[in-house]
Formats: sequence, C-alpha cells, structure tokens
Amino acid sequence: MSTLQFSLGATTNSTTHEEALTPLLSEAQDQFVQLLAGDCAGSDFLGWLHLPEEMTGTPLAEIEREAERLRRDYDVVVIVGIGGSYLGAEALLTALSDQRKENGGAELIFLGFTLCPDYVTSVLRRLEGRHFAVVVISKSGTTTEPAVAFRLLQGLLDAEEAGEDAKRVVAITDAARGALHDMAVSRGYVRFVIPDDVGGRFSVLTAVGLLPLAIAGVEVRELLRGATDAQHALLADKSAKNPALRYAAARQMHYRQGKKVEVLATYTPFLRSLSEWYKQLFAESEGKAGRGVFASSACYTTDLHSLGQYFQEGERLFFETHLHVNRSENSIFMDERRDNADGLNYLSGMSLHRINSTVLEATMLAHEEGDMPCLRLSIPRRDAYWLGYLVYFFELSCAVSVLMQGINPFDQPGVEAYKRKMFHLLGKPAS
Amino acid sequence: MSTLQFSLGATTNSTTHEEALTPLLSEAQDQFVQLLAGDCAGSDFLGWLHLPEEMTGTPLAEIEREAERLRRDYDVVVIVGIGGSYLGAEALLTALSDQRKENGGAELIFLGFTLCPDYVTSVLRRLEGRHFAVVVISKSGTTTEPAVAFRLLQGLLDAEEAGEDAKRVVAITDAARGALHDMAVSRGYVRFVIPDDVGGRFSVLTAVGLLPLAIAGVEVRELLRGATDAQHALLADKSAKNPALRYAAARQMHYRQGKKVEVLATYTPFLRSLSEWYKQLFAESEGKAGRGVFASSACYTTDLHSLGQYFQEGERLFFETHLHVNRSENSIFMDERRDNADGLNYLSGMSLHRINSTVLEATMLAHEEGDMPCLRLSIPRRDAYWLGYLVYFFELSCAVSVLMQGINPFDQPGVEAYKRKMFHLLGKPAS
Repeated sequence: MSTLQFSLGATTNSTTHEEALTPLLSEAQDQFVQLLAGDCAGSDFLGWLHLPEEMTGTPLAEIEREAERLRRDYDVVVIVGIGGSYLGAEALLTALSDQRKENGGAELIFLGFTLCPDYVTSVLRRLEGRHFAVVVISKSGTTTEPAVAFRLLQGLLDAEEAGEDAKRVVAITDAARGALHDMAVSRGYVRFVIPDDVGGRFSVLTAVGLLPLAIAGVEVRELLRGATDAQHALLADKSAKNPALRYAAARQMHYRQGKKVEVLATYTPFLRSLSEWYKQLFAESEGKAGRGVFASSACYTTDLHSLGQYFQEGERLFFETHLHVNRSENSIFMDERRDNADGLNYLSGMSLHRINSTVLEATMLAHEEGDMPCLRLSIPRRDAYWLGYLVYFFELSCAVSVLMQGINPFDQPGVEAYKRKMFHLLGKPAS
Repeated sequence: MSTLQFSLGATTNSTTHEEALTPLLSEAQDQFVQLLAGDCAGSDFLGWLHLPEEMTGTPLAEIEREAERLRRDYDVVVIVGIGGSYLGAEALLTALSDQRKENGGAELIFLGFTLCPDYVTSVLRRLEGRHFAVVVISKSGTTTEPAVAFRLLQGLLDAEEAGEDAKRVVAITDAARGALHDMAVSRGYVRFVIPDDVGGRFSVLTAVGLLPLAIAGVEVRELLRGATDAQHALLADKSAKNPALRYAAARQMHYRQGKKVEVLATYTPFLRSLSEWYKQLFAESEGKAGRGVFASSACYTTDLHSLGQYFQEGERLFFETHLHVNRSENSIFMDERRDNADGLNYLSGMSLHRINSTVLEATMLAHEEGDMPCLRLSIPRRDAYWLGYLVYFFELSCAVSVLMQGINPFDQPGVEAYKRKMFHLLGKPAS
C-alpha cells in the first residue's frame, strides 16, 4: 500500500508483539482523544495539530513571495537560529538536497547555533564579497547564540550600507513582544510570526522551517500537502490501526520493558539531519522527571561498522526504529565482471536499492536475535510530500507517546539549568 | 600547563571523586602493565601502541610522495572505505578543515560507506567531467559496501581509458592476501599496507588515515609528531597521574555506578566528526558479552537546545566527558551597541571563546547537579599536533578501559551477525 506504514518486529508474523501492544494501544487511544479535546498537559501548545491546513493558502503564498524576493536579490541567505529554530529546516534541506527546483534556490548558510569563534569566522569568510541577506529566527530575540550571531551580522551590514538593513533582514519571531519583535518593528524588517501555541521543536511547518526551505528551492507546497494529508488521515482515525498511535504505544511498551534508549535507524546519508530533528523532538519532549525514552540515532550501513558491535552484543538498553524508504529516486544495478576478483558476481543484476533494503531486513533479524526489539516505519518515497507526511506523523506520535508517560510534552524546564549558571558566570545583570 | 589534561568533576575540589577513583586507578595500572608486556586479551593486535614512532621516517615519506603525485595529477580523489577505513580520516579532515596547507590539497570525496543508490548517484555526478583518482581501503577487499563502490568506480575508469587504472588507483590493504591485495598485484596498483596487528578502528595513524589526509593538505607530519609525543609520554608513565589511566578508570567507575552511557561533549562543529570516530573506537571495542559503556556524543552549544533537556532531567543513564580546546585559532570580540536592543551589552569586550568556555563550565555545573557526572579533557589547541596527541590518548585509554572489563578490546565478533543474515537473504554462495 502506498502510504506511511508502521509495523512491529522483524517478521510479519508477530502475534506475540501484537498481544503485548494491546493494553498500551488502548492507553494511547485514550490520550489521543484527550489531546484532540485539548484536555491534556500543555494544552496551550497544540497549535501544531492543525497547522498544515492553516498554513496552506495565504500564509504559504506570503512565505513564497518573500522567498522569491530573497532568491532574486541575494547570492546567499544566512539563517540565524538554534534548536527548533534551525533543525527542521536543516533536516528537510538535507533530506531533499538532490531534489531542489531546477531554477535553483539561493545558497543557505546556518549560523547562530554555535559560539565557536573559529566556526563563526569560517562562515563570515564565506560571506566576504557576496551579497547576503539574513533571516533571524528567535521567539524572544535574547537567546544567546542567535543573538550573538545576529549582532555580528548587523555589524557587517552596517559597515556595508548603514540603515539599509530593513531590506536585508527578515525576522521570524513572536507576534507581539520580545527583543527581536521590537527591533524588527523599529527597524522595519519584514516579519513572520511564530504562533504562541507552537513550541520551537514543533515549528518546522511554520515560517520557521518553510521560509528557509522555500529560499533554498525546496517544494514547500508539496511538503505542506503531505503534512495536511497526514493531519487529515491521522487525526480522523481513533482506531487501534492508526500508525501514530501504534508507534506511540510500541515506544512505551519497550520502554516499560526496560529498553530505555530508542535508536532511529536510517539507511541513507540524506536522512542524517532528519535524525537530529527527531532527537530534539522526542528527547526534549519526553526527558523529564527522571523518566523518558532517550532518543538517539544511527545511519546505516555505515554505523553497522561502528555501533553495530555494541547494538548486537553490548548492554541491552535499546529498541530500534528502522526507517525504510520503499523506492529510490535513482537506479544503479550491479554489473557482472568476468574475473569476479571481488567475489561480488552473486549480486549481478541486482539493484543497490534492493541490496540496501536487504541489509535492513538482515539487521532487524540480527538485532532482534540479540534482544534489541525492532519497529519498522516506511514511507513510499524520499520526496517533499512524504517528508511532510512523516514530520506530522512524528509530531503526533511524540505528543501521544509522551502523554502516556504522564508528562507534559510541550515544555522544557531543564534547559534553563545551564543558562542560569552561564548568566551567573558571565555576570549578566538581573533583568 | 600546555599539554593534554584530564580531570574529574565540575569543580577543582573533587576530593570525593578522587577517593572513589583510587581502587579503579590501581586496576587500570595493572591492566596497563599487562598491555605493555603484551600479556592481555587480543595481544595479537597491539601494533597501534608503537605505531606513531614507526610511521615516522620512511613510511611517512612514501605516503607524502604518493599524496603529492595524486594532488598534482588529479582534481578529485575518491576515498573508498567504511568504518575504521574512513572515520579517522574524515574526523581529522573535518577537525582541521580550516587549517589545510596554503598550496591546497586535492578535493576528497568519501564513498563506499553507504549502499543508498541516491547518494552514490550524487557522488558519481560530482565526478562527471573531472579527472579523478581512487584510494580504496579494505583489509579483505570483500566488505560489501566498499567492494560495491569500487566496482562501480572501476566501471567508470574502464569506460574512460581501459587498462589505465594502474595509475589512478591506490590500494590500502593486507600485506599478503585477500581479494583487494590480489587485484592490486595483478593490476599493478600502488599499494600501502594495513599491518596485521592493527585493527580497523586503531588504524588512523597508518596509511589508512595518513594518505587521505596528506592528499587533502593536512599537516600529517605534525599529526604524527603529536601522536609520537603522546606515545612517549603516556607509555612511560605507569603512575596514577597518567591521564590515559585516569580517564580509563573514571569511565569504569561511573559505569559500575550505573551510568551506562558516556556522552562525549564537544563545543565546536569542527569536532563533530571526531565524535563519530570516537564512538566506533569505544563502542566497538567495549560492547561485548552484554556489557560495556555505550559511547555517544553531543555537540554543544547546539545540542543543549535539543538533548539538553533530557540530560538535565531524563533517565539518569549518563556520564559526560567534556572536551575543551584551551584557545581558539581566531578571535572575535563582542562589541557595544548603543541601543542594546538585544540586551547583550553585558558581553561587550568579551571574546566568543571566553563565552563558549563559560558555557562549558556552566554545563558541567548544571549537569552534575542533575546527577550526570562530568569529566573534563582539555587540549591546548585544535591543530594537527594536538589532534595526533588526542587520537593516541583515546586509543590507549580505550584499550586500558576495556581490559578493565575483562573484555578483549580488539575483536568485533558481533559485527558478523547481520552479515550472515544478509548473505543468506542475498543468496551469496558459500565460499
């Protein structure tokens, strides 16, 4: 069937798993109903639930128009953000980097996610002699890393053409308040809004993700179409067949059985950055009160030659979610070599995609034998539509899964701990 | 003091930690003495111990000469390898990417670490119309991923100028046997040897790492000089002050206290790939018999905004090793802005390096308060010399640490599990 699918276990006949899942599924269904009713922890932050549909139409057209202006007028656009303010855009940009529009987007450079002076220097050098614009993304405008980067970039802009930054800076920020909002108003920057009820890690389908992606030439319309279809399909299905509920339930089942770490296993370098987005989404939502599945990732086959040994025979801490893409965008077939010096002729005529998919099957079998339970998630293709679908699927699964723990999925109180120490050590005046 | 340093705990006054460490340190010293005597598990694979000194001189000169030829004659060099056959080169290339020689190296492209046809296609497209050479790295020559990539590249070479691949291919492989060795002999490829007593994940200071790095213009002489100084300093010190023994002991101390996952925390994107190399080194060495510290990583400050919440308040599974670089290569200072619209004026006149280092201090304090014990490792600079030193330090620490578990650090029996399933599913004939 040509849609996103979820299944438990390495083999299709997994009656045992299904039976174990049943009570968890019923919990997941209960939490889902409460989530839909807005009757759950963190209910002020449910804007992402209906976001795909709401973004389509005028909001998307405005984003596309601004993207078009930036692409036309600048060589490079610097995206300034950290955490949820850049991981989503970077994830989808990497995932679709071989599928950008023919007429090309502008080059994107990310900044504001590190304080390393050597890295910042390398980025500033890449900007020398090039006509660049800045998209600065921050709810408050005072998060240290992006604020530092933006101040440095403003210095460059002022040096080039003082007062002209109104055209060259776009701010994605709070609708009504905060340092960046106030700066944007007083200096006349183009503004886009991060809705109050959408947290950073759930914001990739707002301007936060869509504007950078549109600038880079990603098919954001397809992305939103996929997410909207996911919204409609998944929100309408309260049954035990809803794949988002099944995934949420399976995660908690393995967690309660002592598997405290989830490994998201992908099989292509194109999906490496998606794993970083996924890690923030799940780990920041769930890691509270001394509990929660820890979200980690592996990129196969390469990591089978680095982490594979541990997963097979080390501590039994893990369950693993294998993300399969059903078909590839390109076909490569193994040819026959007369001498067969490398012994690979048994693969002659086989496609690389088939070999890669066989590794997935083999890995699931081997890991399950080694007591690392496996889940499988598959999407028909790696394109904008199905990535949009997948993003929404993960967001919904995450919310339901974390609510099953009795935890608010939408706050992040622990992130303040190091900041308080840092402000103290840096002598920040009390505000 | 200007050398690599190791310490326990977020505060300098960590008497409690020191007392707890003492019995472990004595175990580490015992294992170290046996390792030096060649009287330990896996003693056939101790070639890495004296490798830095042995590679200096003629072997290095031969590598540099070959690198010079490839840089002169080709636009691009494709490095074909997986696991230990590419992670070390990639780690150091990324770590030193802003410090390559002025006269420039050739561009390197890695292949053979994935079976994704879309990724392979994107690499083959980048080679179109460019004059490229291939360095193929494999002990056996039959590891599926690099063998598949090499067969595809041979197809391209044959199509361009059949029979001319002798000049365009360099093989780094076994000295005497294996498919790649035999192919290299019969076709007249330039050959470099992976010594019998050096395992893949310990091979970065052989031609496996040094040839690609030299081609790319990294100062391999400095790298080896640092590693040789580490070899001399660390092997000569059997005392409880040896930082490699202290790190090894501290890892096992936290592991035995139930902290099963180590997070290597770096503070610059330049060291992201080093973490991948480190993860293979430690996880593949230690993850056996249902035991072992699981090696993972985080890149701060960005991951403080994604994994930080979990580390602060999720399951208490972790201890954390913070890798600090004492000085930066570039200086950036925060300026004063009259309007102070972003509220950052309290940082005016401060260097980014100091702010970044303060985040490290703050994070260690916050994480320890959250019951995530912290270790600190520091190197004076991020340059070829100190990275060579660090590589050797990690290798030695790893061996001692794993031997303390009663585990052979140098084999990887579990890696075969998925391969057996894969060969069965692909119908590989019994050999």
